[in-house]
Amino acid sequence: MCVRQRFSELPLSFFPPRQLIFIFQHFYPLPTHDDSKRQPGGVCVCVVPSDPSRSRVMTLEAIRYRAGSLQILNQLLLPQETVYDEVRTVQDGYEAIKSMKVRGAPAIAIVGCLSLAVELRAGAGGNDPVTFIRESLCHLTSARPTAVNMGRAARELMEFAENESMEKNTEQLTESVIGWIEEMLERDVNDNKKIGNYGAQHILSGVPRDSVTILTHCNTGSLATAGYGTALGVVRSLHALGRLKRMYCTETRPYNQGARLTAYEAVAEGFPATLITDSMAALTMREKSITAVVVGADRVVANGDTANKIGTYQLAIAAKHHGIPFYVAAPSTSCDLSLESGRHIVIEERPAEELTSINGVPIAAPGIDVWNPAFDVTPHQLITGGIITELGVFLPSELQAALTGRLTAL
Amino acid sequence: MCVRQRFSELPLSFFPPRQLIFIFQHFYPLPTHDDSKRQPGGVCVCVVPSDPSRSRVMTLEAIRYRAGSLQILNQLLLPQETVYDEVRTVQDGYEAIKSMKVRGAPAIAIVGCLSLAVELRAGAGGNDPVTFIRESLCHLTSARPTAVNMGRAARELMEFAENESMEKNTEQLTESVIGWIEEMLERDVNDNKKIGNYGAQHILSGVPRDSVTILTHCNTGSLATAGYGTALGVVRSLHALGRLKRMYCTETRPYNQGARLTAYEAVAEGFPATLITDSMAALTMREKSITAVVVGADRVVANGDTANKIGTYQLAIAAKHHGIPFYVAAPSTSCDLSLESGRHIVIEERPAEELTSINGVPIAAPGIDVWNPAFDVTPHQLITGGIITELGVFLPSELQAALTGRLTAL
Repeated sequence: MCVRQRFSELPLSFFPPRQLIFIFQHFYPLPTHDDSKRQPGGVCVCVVPSDPSRSRVMTLEAIRYRAGSLQILNQLLLPQETVYDEVRTVQDGYEAIKSMKVRGAPAIAIVGCLSLAVELRAGAGGNDPVTFIRESLCHLTSARPTAVNMGRAARELMEFAENESMEKNTEQLTESVIGWIEEMLERDVNDNKKIGNYGAQHILSGVPRDSVTILTHCNTGSLATAGYGTALGVVRSLHALGRLKRMYCTETRPYNQGARLTAYEAVAEGFPATLITDSMAALTMREKSITAVVVGADRVVANGDTANKIGTYQLAIAAKHHGIPFYVAAPSTSCDLSLESGRHIVIEERPAEELTSINGVPIAAPGIDVWNPAFDVTPHQLITGGIITELGVFLPSELQAALTGRLTAL
Repeated sequence: MCVRQRFSELPLSFFPPRQLIFIFQHFYPLPTHDDSKRQPGGVCVCVVPSDPSRSRVMTLEAIRYRAGSLQILNQLLLPQETVYDEVRTVQDGYEAIKSMKVRGAPAIAIVGCLSLAVELRAGAGGNDPVTFIRESLCHLTSARPTAVNMGRAARELMEFAENESMEKNTEQLTESVIGWIEEMLERDVNDNKKIGNYGAQHILSGVPRDSVTILTHCNTGSLATAGYGTALGVVRSLHALGRLKRMYCTETRPYNQGARLTAYEAVAEGFPATLITDSMAALTMREKSITAVVVGADRVVANGDTANKIGTYQLAIAAKHHGIPFYVAAPSTSCDLSLESGRHIVIEERPAEELTSINGVPIAAPGIDVWNPAFDVTPHQLITGGIITELGVFLPSELQAALTGRLTAL
């Protein structure tokens, strides 16, 4: 089923010409939206022509939520197609996470919890919502067990639901839980905006009048979070302040999140942005006057060591060599003070096929051995700019003191 | 036309079982070798199934030459298919170079000159071989004007032919020129073997008993030279000495020479080898006990600054950070003492499509800007191991004195 909304309540003169064209393309798309576009567990909402620059008049929304309705941008089809899938149930949410239609640790947690909110609002849970919530959260957490944010959100939400169930009736409890989830969505966007603003101000404090050039890695934008982004949120804030000269994004092999997703966001949002291969980063630092390198984080541990997408460590070494400040941008929920140093982080290794083929097309010699670590750990000594959180920008040595006490309150 | 040779003069018992299987596959291939495999200017010689490990019993030959006959391994079809194309004329040679069936500066020069030798032996040039040679060399040089070795070979060969023409008749002159070209082929292979041996000994001198682990970049092997290779020649020598524990090769985006060609050579030759993305090099240095990084060179200038495939500079920075010796392997013909430093080398920029699609399949967001420098310059301070030439291994500071006088004699 394709949802087509009408703007009959608004006069045509309300829209500037470019926006009218977009709305026409958006809701009356020329390409077919046939059954082949439907994914299990979701419904094709709309197909926008593949050039994201045509949607420049709107802010990119990876997650579209209003009470009782959730749609997610299917990242498996990017950048070729912009398709929103409807998520109506916890099972839809589970499948969207499992199949990587949605990715990025914060976004996974948000979509998982929102799918529960949508199903609860539709009446699921009946007379025993606590059991339904517990089973749903357990199922959602199992979709991508390594995504730490979903597990943390599940624990917190379950604790909240159990406390509420002691005082409230079934209907009140359901409303409370939905409210908690909606607040979580709002909080994530607000935290990202704080990260963006703190990061932008910190970078600009070193260059009072000039506009700046940022190098980033992987995808840390609207597509990886509830919206706005972490490292890409810093870029977004700089752009909003009129101080972004240009962003360079690495293609981020082997999964190409930079080329597919960050480049897509940059074009959609109108950032001045240039794509490079991962191997060009050092030359870019030397030749293109990079002001700062800003990356995201999968996990920041107590001493500031940071696990992030493979290639981050190499970027940090190159930044150090060129005397360019290196920043990690992450919400405090990505900080894990229970680990003393990065030595304790196990490096996940992924299948060889990610390197040896693209979209099923072989690109490497058959029979070659492959090593495919998914991320690496950047030692805190190389994080020379700071760690940008929603609570402020901290040197690695300041992180533990800054977060102690505040993290548990979150 | 498919050339099928017969081994009727040898008894079947001459061949071990694996070799028999290979010979059968090689000369009586199962896949079709239909017209679609024929490239302009060449003839399909044989199609071997795509798995190079099945040809492990033979040394990989990228250039097959015997008096009057030249066949080249079509690198456009690697690693999926192993097809040798017949080169009968200068025009065949020109087209093989232009279309990148053959690549790598030394290989381009060899194939160009050998195509002239083949056509001369077939009687081309008639009564005025000097004019034919001049026009042929001019045409061949224009196929890839930036490949400096072809230009250098053309100048030297033309000077030789003009000198010979003063003393010799047409037939003697033709024979002399063919002899010069055949010596050039032999010299290139011999020079590479010297590079391999000098490099291997230098690396092993630091680790008297252990076997070593080498990290390399791009393709510098049999496929880029007349045979044996430069940086990959060093790996070959270490392997022949039984001292190669493992080689790591970067995929070398955006043209994937590492994944397609170096990995192909490694599998074909039976080197223990692992493919990584370019972004994994620093982590590999930290986690996999890399003994040395060895790369090739497009050009080495007087102070030792080295232009090579994009990504080399970043590798050198990472090697320095980890205290791992960084070597450049190149014949003295790749050294250009006329340039004082790498600052004078202009960085060639190539089309965006190399980053945004693979085999015609789009892999990046449409509309994104792209920067695609083809190579970078590594400052001599980062070449901590040395520059490996056929004359020995030199520190960058020793290079100019070591080559002065000897280079002009080549």
